[in-house]
Amino acid sequence: MNQEINRWKEETTHTEPIFSGKIISLQVDTVALPDGSTATREIVKHPGAAAVIALLNGKLLVVEQYRKPLEKFQIELPAGKLDAGEDPLEAARRELEEETGYKAETLQLVSAFYTSPGFADEKLYVYFTDQIVSGKQQTDEDEFLEVMAITLAEAEAFISEGRISDAKTIMAVYVWKLYLLTGKLPV
Amino acid sequence: MNQEINRWKEETTHTEPIFSGKIISLQVDTVALPDGSTATREIVKHPGAAAVIALLNGKLLVVEQYRKPLEKFQIELPAGKLDAGEDPLEAARRELEEETGYKAETLQLVSAFYTSPGFADEKLYVYFTDQIVSGKQQTDEDEFLEVMAITLAEAEAFISEGRISDAKTIMAVYVWKLYLLTGKLPV
Repeated sequence: MNQEINRWKEETTHTEPIFSGKIISLQVDTVALPDGSTATREIVKHPGAAAVIALLNGKLLVVEQYRKPLEKFQIELPAGKLDAGEDPLEAARRELEEETGYKAETLQLVSAFYTSPGFADEKLYVYFTDQIVSGKQQTDEDEFLEVMAITLAEAEAFISEGRISDAKTIMAVYVWKLYLLTGKLPV
Repeated sequence: MNQEINRWKEETTHTEPIFSGKIISLQVDTVALPDGSTATREIVKHPGAAAVIALLNGKLLVVEQYRKPLEKFQIELPAGKLDAGEDPLEAARRELEEETGYKAETLQLVSAFYTSPGFADEKLYVYFTDQIVSGKQQTDEDEFLEVMAITLAEAEAFISEGRISDAKTIMAVYVWKLYLLTGKLPV
């Protein structure tokens, strides 16, 4: 099978830069297709991000904030984008403390996934810890959020109500359930 | 708490349209912050998408395709974007048959989540079925893919190897594990 699908790799024949912002950039690539035709691909470039599943006395630390693209408040894992050249583990450690005021003594990588591979290269690294101590909350200057520690039942209720509705946080709840059921983190 | 966070809703003072493409569009909004300052938000608009966790004789139907934003082949759930005004359930039914050649007799909504709420409004609806019959494969003209049915052990190996590395498909594997462990789909 690999031989066959190797034919299908999309070679770029032209890249049109559209936008370069403070978080994302956008380009449109023209690609050659296996049948000899061409197509365009709209591609968002993102520096990547890190998030933490942090359990404090059996509750999950989450933050509630206004999400402008959705025009609503959302409850999510503590998370943030990587600074230039930053190790995802360090970003996870930094974001957890900045957003929640708690420091992780250990962090274990659970999963690293592309959030939207059809149009973006954003990769999100998700870490787990149940070893946390008090640190110092210090949010970004344009970031306003509330910290909560929630039970699994509360998390499931927030999912049902749509107050938790992003991929990483729903995935975190599944990881948490698998951890409670099997005693270990999933692959 | 709701009273307090209501103060933090980000009102738009200006919207700058940047790009309008065949799949996404991009705008930069200027917003008013609670402390009286302003900030910009880079926002990708996406029509939404639907994906299917389809089990055939205890194996998961997946497709392998070249993902230009990642510049590599990826194994993923059958999925696709919503056509204008399309019901996500109908999109899921359509994409499953077009991409894999199998038709779902039943489809149950498992989760609907925002893939990347920091910069995009894309919402992905994930359905489940273990009732499928043969249909007619018919991919889009610029879409080239391979269909496979994989075991849970194969899925976990593909995750470890990075051949499965997108949010919806990793989440699907967690859903599948929870379904096998508990006999039901998670919240």
